[in-house]
Amino acid sequence: VAERALTFSPAVAVPGDAAVPVAPSRGRLRPLGIGEVRLAPGFWHERQERNAEATIGHCRTWEDRVGWTGNFRAAVEGRLPGDRQGRNFADSDVYKLLEAMCWEFGRAGDGDLNAEAARLAAEIAAVQEPDGYLNTNFGRAGQAGRYSDLEWGHELYCYGHLIQAGVAALRGGAAGQLFEVARRAADHVCAEFGPGGRDGVCGHAEIEMALVELYRATGEARYLEQASLFVERRGHHVLDDIELGRDYFQDDLPIRQAGAFRGHAVRALYLACGAVDVAVETGDGDLLAAIVRQWERTVAARTYLTGGMGARHTGESFGEDYELPPDRAYAETCAGIASVMLSWRLLLATGEPRFADLAERTMYNLVATSPALDGRAFFYTNTLYQRRPGTVPSRDEASPRAHASLRAPWFNVSCCPTNVARTMASLAGYVATVDDGGVQLHQLTACTLTPALPDGRTLGLRVETGYPWKGTVTVRVEAASGGQPARIALRVPAWAGAGAVLHGPEGSAPVGPGYAVVERAWRAGDELRLELPVAPRWTRPDPRIDAVRGCVAVERGPIVYCAEIPGDDQGHLDGLAVDTSTPPVEATGAASTEAGGAIHLTVKASPLSEPGTGPSAGLPYGERPAGGERAAHQAATEPLPLIPYHRWGNRGPATMRVWLPEAVDTATS
Amino acid sequence: VAERALTFSPAVAVPGDAAVPVAPSRGRLRPLGIGEVRLAPGFWHERQERNAEATIGHCRTWEDRVGWTGNFRAAVEGRLPGDRQGRNFADSDVYKLLEAMCWEFGRAGDGDLNAEAARLAAEIAAVQEPDGYLNTNFGRAGQAGRYSDLEWGHELYCYGHLIQAGVAALRGGAAGQLFEVARRAADHVCAEFGPGGRDGVCGHAEIEMALVELYRATGEARYLEQASLFVERRGHHVLDDIELGRDYFQDDLPIRQAGAFRGHAVRALYLACGAVDVAVETGDGDLLAAIVRQWERTVAARTYLTGGMGARHTGESFGEDYELPPDRAYAETCAGIASVMLSWRLLLATGEPRFADLAERTMYNLVATSPALDGRAFFYTNTLYQRRPGTVPSRDEASPRAHASLRAPWFNVSCCPTNVARTMASLAGYVATVDDGGVQLHQLTACTLTPALPDGRTLGLRVETGYPWKGTVTVRVEAASGGQPARIALRVPAWAGAGAVLHGPEGSAPVGPGYAVVERAWRAGDELRLELPVAPRWTRPDPRIDAVRGCVAVERGPIVYCAEIPGDDQGHLDGLAVDTSTPPVEATGAASTEAGGAIHLTVKASPLSEPGTGPSAGLPYGERPAGGERAAHQAATEPLPLIPYHRWGNRGPATMRVWLPEAVDTATS
Repeated sequence: VAERALTFSPAVAVPGDAAVPVAPSRGRLRPLGIGEVRLAPGFWHERQERNAEATIGHCRTWEDRVGWTGNFRAAVEGRLPGDRQGRNFADSDVYKLLEAMCWEFGRAGDGDLNAEAARLAAEIAAVQEPDGYLNTNFGRAGQAGRYSDLEWGHELYCYGHLIQAGVAALRGGAAGQLFEVARRAADHVCAEFGPGGRDGVCGHAEIEMALVELYRATGEARYLEQASLFVERRGHHVLDDIELGRDYFQDDLPIRQAGAFRGHAVRALYLACGAVDVAVETGDGDLLAAIVRQWERTVAARTYLTGGMGARHTGESFGEDYELPPDRAYAETCAGIASVMLSWRLLLATGEPRFADLAERTMYNLVATSPALDGRAFFYTNTLYQRRPGTVPSRDEASPRAHASLRAPWFNVSCCPTNVARTMASLAGYVATVDDGGVQLHQLTACTLTPALPDGRTLGLRVETGYPWKGTVTVRVEAASGGQPARIALRVPAWAGAGAVLHGPEGSAPVGPGYAVVERAWRAGDELRLELPVAPRWTRPDPRIDAVRGCVAVERGPIVYCAEIPGDDQGHLDGLAVDTSTPPVEATGAASTEAGGAIHLTVKASPLSEPGTGPSAGLPYGERPAGGERAAHQAATEPLPLIPYHRWGNRGPATMRVWLPEAVDTATS
Repeated sequence: VAERALTFSPAVAVPGDAAVPVAPSRGRLRPLGIGEVRLAPGFWHERQERNAEATIGHCRTWEDRVGWTGNFRAAVEGRLPGDRQGRNFADSDVYKLLEAMCWEFGRAGDGDLNAEAARLAAEIAAVQEPDGYLNTNFGRAGQAGRYSDLEWGHELYCYGHLIQAGVAALRGGAAGQLFEVARRAADHVCAEFGPGGRDGVCGHAEIEMALVELYRATGEARYLEQASLFVERRGHHVLDDIELGRDYFQDDLPIRQAGAFRGHAVRALYLACGAVDVAVETGDGDLLAAIVRQWERTVAARTYLTGGMGARHTGESFGEDYELPPDRAYAETCAGIASVMLSWRLLLATGEPRFADLAERTMYNLVATSPALDGRAFFYTNTLYQRRPGTVPSRDEASPRAHASLRAPWFNVSCCPTNVARTMASLAGYVATVDDGGVQLHQLTACTLTPALPDGRTLGLRVETGYPWKGTVTVRVEAASGGQPARIALRVPAWAGAGAVLHGPEGSAPVGPGYAVVERAWRAGDELRLELPVAPRWTRPDPRIDAVRGCVAVERGPIVYCAEIPGDDQGHLDGLAVDTSTPPVEATGAASTEAGGAIHLTVKASPLSEPGTGPSAGLPYGERPAGGERAAHQAATEPLPLIPYHRWGNRGPATMRVWLPEAVDTATS
């Protein structure tokens, strides 16, 4: 990995004005910005529209309602700390909302939205102190002192989101003073925490990647140096030990020595993003290789089928290897988003399709799961097994807790909704790249692409597909300048195995997972058609994952399925086993014609055998013979409907389950 | 249950001066006090001696060192709140220590210990305010006001432990002013929280059972009435909603409506104890039946093989039914102790052996697990699967966290060590009972019994046994007065199945689980001998417990076994499957001759098959065929040593596992 990663390719440097969330100056691939990729109607376009129409405004309304935007006015009016609302990090959610507004303006050009963002930016600017310090929660009379609580204060974390918003404002071309506010804050951080300054890091990584992006946007080396300092400083016990342990904020081990992501999942993944950014900009192959190694182990042993990361509610953290309980999956929405951010950075740096594969899995099965169909309520945690319908959050109150059986409109800790908003608004920035030889389509979604190739040629491409529901992806060349050959690469997802076929101008051929590449002097009207085998399939876990031993899941294309039983009753999902002797079938009739073309499935299920009545005085343990449950499907089976996991919880209280115990016919084994 | 429970038997009322932790005035059985049961050398005697010699002094030393005893002196000297040490509830641990000292004095009569306890009691008495209020954390200038934070303040919880210590002082006949201090505090509580007073309950149940015991000790009905009021008041949302949810402190549902124990395990179980006490004293069969119903469901679906309760680290709480992950078992030591306290109360009320069975399981596999072999370090949580050796707590510092891979000498929240101390000191009070017809031996441990039967007769019995390692329990009559027949009942544990035989003066007969009863006009020299089948056995879980599906555990007699691999390396316990085609065998040689006669076992294990390399881009999921791991033991097997679970963690860092994946030979199924 180190060797390949060091093969940087300066020729594909991102133009300074490209509207991209991540703009590495080197790497294997250059991202296409949200101006070069336009989503067309389909799975992600629908969600991006809903984000624009509902989610961004919803977040603004709630941030006003709970007083987090008001904190800035209260600061100017001298009403702090008395009138301050929200937790330490409330400022950051205002910044994440601003980032979403900037990307959305960059994408759709809504002047009213830009004006609103600029007004909000002005209110924030008014709070910034002469030395650049900016936080509504620290430093005033009656408040704790600046940087007096690096473990939990989140001041640098808040700057990180401010700086990301500022970069979005710069690249989206809008939002008034926001970029300058962010830059002054970054200058303050460099002065305060630079060499010879405070020897600290933030309890929540985030500023690292923000500073690198600011470096990329401005060319000012001190931002990169400060980011590098933060990345390397952490892990040497610079923060206090806490009840959750120092691994909670990755201060247990220097980043190059760790073997896997650990501790608080969002913190760990944001830190990894920053480390990749530093590694790429400084040409540090060792650091990049360390993160790739940690990613590999994390994916191999600490990642849910949905791409979700974080197995523990306690500390919102990664657990040990193979500790992946479906019922207690934390799998925070923000961790899924952070994982996509990391996958994207690793893809750009290395060009390896495995990173795009994980991003796809995580996008469809975690990021898409969080928002409700109306875009106005969100899952914070993303369980894979809802045993009981549980409590339903009010649509009129902020939820006091992260975990709920249905989506909540807002949370006391409400990082997820604004993270969804900024991700959906910038989604087109995660679809395609170019390199010296051509263009790569990583996410198979309907869109138009107008990449400026590094050598100055332009291509106009239209991608048509009903993916993920349908397996056909057509790429049509609508415009091509120059007559030199260029490559078009389509990602063939890992899940397709050996079943994909590419039809091109020069014939058809089976294509394996990775990239199907056609090099050609393209002419308008040329077409590539990728056919992917989207039949439903059974998926089984590594036997070391205790929590789902003996279970199967169902996937179809990139989509993970689940059984959902709506209703207040507990349902009976904990007493079923599925018959895997025949494949899942696609549902027909009403159930198969849901909006958006989502395909539903049906499997056959039967009751789990009753446990034996061993001599255990009422306990669920006994001298029951082995394999008791395995004869289960000899009993009558009944059809069990499955829906895409990302659609669950939209029909009121329900029980839900991704992994289903497998009935094995003892007579046939 | 209700009907049987209402068959109270006033004839067996406990004498007012009996040294028992629980002294119901009615019920099926009367407990024998620590003066009537003397443990003889063996499993529990060894632990009681260690408690007396090491643990009690260890707790005193640490409470001085961390300043919790010093809080009382600081209060008298006007140095609060500045000098206060510890969490809100630090006072309670001083009271639990005092309770342990009182029982220990009652048991062994050590005058120095009593004098020390009396001095400590005097320091506490000096802090009590004229109206009976007593707490080092509230009510002074600079402190929060009295009862200003019922959710988290723990004031009533602290009184609960003070009152239990006071009752122990009264019944143990010692510790100076302690009883009077407790009584004044109880009077204050009745005045403050009685009818027309504050309409609140404590965020942590505990005072309920303490007030009932004070009623039993004094005959003052107002204490019982106050306890009843607290029990019934909870569950009506009298406390604030909190992030963990109102079920955390059982304020979600009135106690009669709940279906199972839920929320914080210790809180739930302490509350249930208080409810049983109230039900028994008020003759409320409905309330008793509600608790029995909740106990049944909790045992059937929310209890670990070790008897441990509390499946979640978050909120130290019960999870949903069948949510019993071994790796993340919280199974707090205090919850195990609380479960034994509850089982004992239900046994006394109903006479049903299932409660004694659960107490036995919990005593041997949870309560005995907490203290280290030297009695100076403790498990707070009791996992069933230690995946990695993890961090080792310092023996010189209080642990900042509950969860650790080895026992810690003390904790920032240190409820468990003093709970162990008071339980071990009063252990003899949980062994045997009498009723109108005779004596019942519930725990099969070496001891002498001198029960005063209700009709005035006396019996002198000696129990000799190497239980739990050996299956022979001999009861010898050493003295018998009067010539009337009396019954001697020996509990035959549920685990014995149909394999037990009782040999008595009139012959031998197989005896099933429950009580083997012999009625006879006993004469000195008569002997009963119970033979229990202590061969190792495989135990399998209910198939609804996802986390251990396809696994087996090994038990022998009442003892749960585990595999432990000492050393800093991760070991390879996560990659093994066991061959269950032959039974576990008892180890011979050095491994079988450990102190205390503990028996070690050996099973055959082989590597889990490698997971298939499905097309999942590095994830641990794929289209692997079913049953891949089931062919595992066709590979070479190797012996895997097992030790009693309660002995694990005494050999330095280690991995450990109770539930082991089962290799199934596909050729034979």
